[in-house]
Amino acid sequence: MYFTENRKPKTVLKMLALYFDGKLEMKELPRPEPGPGEVLIQVHLAGVCRTDLEVLKGYHDFRGVLGHEFVGTVAGPENSPWLGRRVVGEINVSCGQCDRCRRGLTHHCRERQVLGLKDRDGAFAPYLTLPAANLHPVPAEVADEVAVFTEPLAAALRVLEAAPVSPEDKVLVVGDGHLGLQIAWVLALHGAQVHLAGHHPEHLLLAEPYGVSTYLESELPPGDYDVVVEASGATGGLNLALARVRPQGAVVLKSTYAGRYDLDPAGLVVPEVRLTGCRCGPFPGALRLLKQGWVDPRPLIARSFSLAQGLEAMAWARGAGVLKVLLDCRVTG
Amino acid sequence: MYFTENRKPKTVLKMLALYFDGKLEMKELPRPEPGPGEVLIQVHLAGVCRTDLEVLKGYHDFRGVLGHEFVGTVAGPENSPWLGRRVVGEINVSCGQCDRCRRGLTHHCRERQVLGLKDRDGAFAPYLTLPAANLHPVPAEVADEVAVFTEPLAAALRVLEAAPVSPEDKVLVVGDGHLGLQIAWVLALHGAQVHLAGHHPEHLLLAEPYGVSTYLESELPPGDYDVVVEASGATGGLNLALARVRPQGAVVLKSTYAGRYDLDPAGLVVPEVRLTGCRCGPFPGALRLLKQGWVDPRPLIARSFSLAQGLEAMAWARGAGVLKVLLDCRVTG
Repeated sequence: MYFTENRKPKTVLKMLALYFDGKLEMKELPRPEPGPGEVLIQVHLAGVCRTDLEVLKGYHDFRGVLGHEFVGTVAGPENSPWLGRRVVGEINVSCGQCDRCRRGLTHHCRERQVLGLKDRDGAFAPYLTLPAANLHPVPAEVADEVAVFTEPLAAALRVLEAAPVSPEDKVLVVGDGHLGLQIAWVLALHGAQVHLAGHHPEHLLLAEPYGVSTYLESELPPGDYDVVVEASGATGGLNLALARVRPQGAVVLKSTYAGRYDLDPAGLVVPEVRLTGCRCGPFPGALRLLKQGWVDPRPLIARSFSLAQGLEAMAWARGAGVLKVLLDCRVTG
Repeated sequence: MYFTENRKPKTVLKMLALYFDGKLEMKELPRPEPGPGEVLIQVHLAGVCRTDLEVLKGYHDFRGVLGHEFVGTVAGPENSPWLGRRVVGEINVSCGQCDRCRRGLTHHCRERQVLGLKDRDGAFAPYLTLPAANLHPVPAEVADEVAVFTEPLAAALRVLEAAPVSPEDKVLVVGDGHLGLQIAWVLALHGAQVHLAGHHPEHLLLAEPYGVSTYLESELPPGDYDVVVEASGATGGLNLALARVRPQGAVVLKSTYAGRYDLDPAGLVVPEVRLTGCRCGPFPGALRLLKQGWVDPRPLIARSFSLAQGLEAMAWARGAGVLKVLLDCRVTG
């Protein structure tokens, strides 16, 4: 217990959250207090991302509450115009002051925090805080289990910003995890001719309603692609991408992982290939696709766990070929 | 001796050329005969490129007459409209038939030959053949020792096509070899703010008349660059490029070499950096810069040798910090 300025005693509210500090544990923490310009969000659902699993392996050297994909309701402060609204939130928190922020590269702020990934506690908790500037209201038509995909769907849309994909292009997506599938969907909606290569026939099936041609990686037909998106997070995926992109084409790297890649620089120079990394994408576009129902991510949900089962959920998510694992963070009673 | 169609005996003309067949030697070869659509070119001067030295180490697995930078005079066939004209020539010979040629990617033809680098004898010889379609006339104002730089200067100009360099951009060129210097020059002429980092104070001096700020690599001031061009051909050069490019910036890879690079893919994904390879560039633009005198490559000439001294010239070119070595291929007497 501590005292606020007006000396009224204030109860420190506690919560149980999924915390990583070299090891993963359910840990009792104080409920976070929103700082200036911030709101308190009661988390409804949170999604487990491959990046979370990479953090457990040492990626980003993060310590804190994991989780950056969420949907929730604004629960404070009392005077916030956002109070009571259902929201999703962008994950980069920028300083607004550094040279990069000043030139508009706010997602790449030198002092940035990233929700559940860098210097800021995340969404595998009953409550989180974010600047109000990061919020997007969720349309009523978009259910929680759909809205929780806003962040990864926005990341999928980022491919269209990172590489000049024409609706005339023949595009290969490598990797049939949930991100690879969402990328294949948005590229197909863009009008491009999309091939998806993966290892899991049951995942590949999920792309076919979008008009995507799907192949086991070993059975991909011959031919060049204008753009290849590597979303497998595996060395073999980047090998395949570089082998199959046409001269002067683009390979878009989507997966963040802790590994290295043995690159042949001449293999970029001679065919004049572009290798482009991309990360976070536009939330408004993702919410429009979800609201219209042009993308329905629900078939990607492999299993839901309660937050109390967080350790079990993370262990389960690490299994081979597991699609999206959700955590229900609403504390009852 | 063999017989042509009209049964007149024909002397097989011989020439001495610098030939690589696992080992480098001066070899007596038949003077080449132009095929359909081709011309015979008497080579005046040829330039030694770093790529030639990489071939000696096994790059490209090439066997034949080396050399792809040249200026010469068309010596045949008798009925060619090019006869007697002084020319430079593009180095890629395309089939015009394959899927890549049909879509305009003729420099990346599946069946392409490359002068002195792939399936076609090169310019370290008194004579070479090329399709007439590959030729560009050399303006009278452009001396041979200037014109011989058309191919590498065009490759330098290719940087402007490969990455969207704005005249507002701050650009770093890594590598103070002759190619790095030419890249720094053309970027400065484009209006960009150019820094050049290298290891040779006497080379760095050659960039300063163009308004380029030059630094020893270890003394480069801090700060991001919008675009970094890696022209050092060294692993450390690419390390520096990736460390100093701003988020959402571009690294242009210019050097072809046989080595590998230990890439951190997350180092591209998180800052959303583009890594772009580029190779051959536009000859007409290069010839315009040379004709106007906006680029004067002559300070890049380290030493000229006669073709007969070819073995000595190549050994000398391999020395550390050697700029452009020229071969005078005119056979006297």
